Amino acid sequence: MSKLVECVPNFSEGRNLDIVEKIASEFRGKEGVKLLDYSSDKDHNRSVVTVIGAPDAVSAAMVNAAGVAVELIDLTKHKGEHPRMGAVDVIPFIPVRGMKMQECVALSKTVAKEIYDKYGLPSYLYENSASSEMRRNLADVRRGEFEGLAAKMQKPGWKPDFGDAPHPTAGAAAVSAREFLIAFNVNLGTSDLAIAVKISNVIRHSGGGLRFVKAMGVDLAERNIAQVSMNLTDYRRTSIYRVFELIKIEAARYGVPVIGSEVIGLLPMQALVDTAEYYLQIEGFKSSQIIEAGLLE
Amino acid sequence: MSKLVECVPNFSEGRNLDIVEKIASEFRGKEGVKLLDYSSDKDHNRSVVTVIGAPDAVSAAMVNAAGVAVELIDLTKHKGEHPRMGAVDVIPFIPVRGMKMQECVALSKTVAKEIYDKYGLPSYLYENSASSEMRRNLADVRRGEFEGLAAKMQKPGWKPDFGDAPHPTAGAAAVSAREFLIAFNVNLGTSDLAIAVKISNVIRHSGGGLRFVKAMGVDLAERNIAQVSMNLTDYRRTSIYRVFELIKIEAARYGVPVIGSEVIGLLPMQALVDTAEYYLQIEGFKSSQIIEAGLLE
Repeated sequence: MSKLVECVPNFSEGRNLDIVEKIASEFRGKEGVKLLDYSSDKDHNRSVVTVIGAPDAVSAAMVNAAGVAVELIDLTKHKGEHPRMGAVDVIPFIPVRGMKMQECVALSKTVAKEIYDKYGLPSYLYENSASSEMRRNLADVRRGEFEGLAAKMQKPGWKPDFGDAPHPTAGAAAVSAREFLIAFNVNLGTSDLAIAVKISNVIRHSGGGLRFVKAMGVDLAERNIAQVSMNLTDYRRTSIYRVFELIKIEAARYGVPVIGSEVIGLLPMQALVDTAEYYLQIEGFKSSQIIEAGLLE
Repeated sequence: MSKLVECVPNFSEGRNLDIVEKIASEFRGKEGVKLLDYSSDKDHNRSVVTVIGAPDAVSAAMVNAAGVAVELIDLTKHKGEHPRMGAVDVIPFIPVRGMKMQECVALSKTVAKEIYDKYGLPSYLYENSASSEMRRNLADVRRGEFEGLAAKMQKPGWKPDFGDAPHPTAGAAAVSAREFLIAFNVNLGTSDLAIAVKISNVIRHSGGGLRFVKAMGVDLAERNIAQVSMNLTDYRRTSIYRVFELIKIEAARYGVPVIGSEVIGLLPMQALVDTAEYYLQIEGFKSSQIIEAGLLE
């Protein structure tokens, strides 16, 4: 099967939908590129695009879309609730199929360089693409936002990976390679939020739990139940089924059953394959045995 | 998501690979059609093609391929171990996604009619497309084979659904709509074949078990274990996980663990989705949440 990458760029425009359409159109009807979704938030004054496809095709479309954003979005006039430092604010690449993380890192650097060469838009690499540990976290990279960029770029350790001064109207971009993030929630047969909090605290990485789990207890008031709400930040190394079974085991000590779960948004087919393989104890299964996979070659 | 149908025609030629290539080429490079696999068996003197795609595109390619078979395969000279009655011997249509069985039945009738109108090849409809109960089973339809066709067509109840006499060199085709068939085997932690046989006997339909399960006990001598070997003839109504869990329950009475399973050949993505949904107790999941599904629209 051919390689598949996802890209989820965020643009600092959520009110002027003409501009959003112009950006989205760079991902539309392009060979090897599939625009899965895009949505705008007026309060955040920000739009999120989700696109998937062949690495070369997706990165070419991404560069073009960045060009549109640099041309049409003026950060000197931008107001919104969401922190931002650039017209195209973040550009994460996510391996979906047949790609190693290092290939995504290489892709992110190529795109960052091209965006600088073509449009003079500087960028910081973050997460797996980061050039130093202090730049790994997006919140650190973006701290100070557009207004603080010129000063930040002068500070030790904060020269951008490409460029050395902000673009006057488009600021700078944060470009990365990261794992696919699955939003997975498990519902408990209790209304006792404290139990969901206790379970969350022990199953998550920060509490001594599973490496790629972020978790918090949530009160689902309208259903009168408590929920363990999670982000799984690397489903290939911390599988959904392992998280689910561990929550069942922890819930059992309180005599609480797991009554359901939910997947919010998208997840890669491989996550479901891993789940079925585990529970059915399937030996030697290949994704190419899925009939639809033949259509994705 | 768009509709997807699978078609698995069998052709009565497995030795002259030039002819097989000409047939396969009718499914190659056609918009909306994906040739997943084709293979030939010299002893059977027969080839099986697996193709998937949009209903209209697949049926058009199928009609053309039947034309090639009628032109190039001469049943009066055909010898092989596998029973056969036509140059294109069977043409089953299988709903894969977004299609009801009745739509597949309609498709099978359209194709059968067109093959008769264009090439004068008569056909019997079988399985879900059958026009009477006695024609439902393929073995009954094909009994007498090519050599007995002319006589059979005169018998009460055996006038073909299209045409009334065999094609002189191409015989007749059997055309159907049927469910996707999953070959699923469960390995037991015992070398005692009798236990696999006993489990098979009670989980299968004929023994009072699950409706869409055919099962038999098999001795995997080289691994020194016994296996429950199955065909699941309607995974949408008899789900894989239900079969698997029932086998575990039956095996437990002999103190035998299930040590693994295997899926032979292809299965639809939905079968894995159903499995993951069950074990993870996922509420409200939609196939469109699978990121790759967006590529199949």
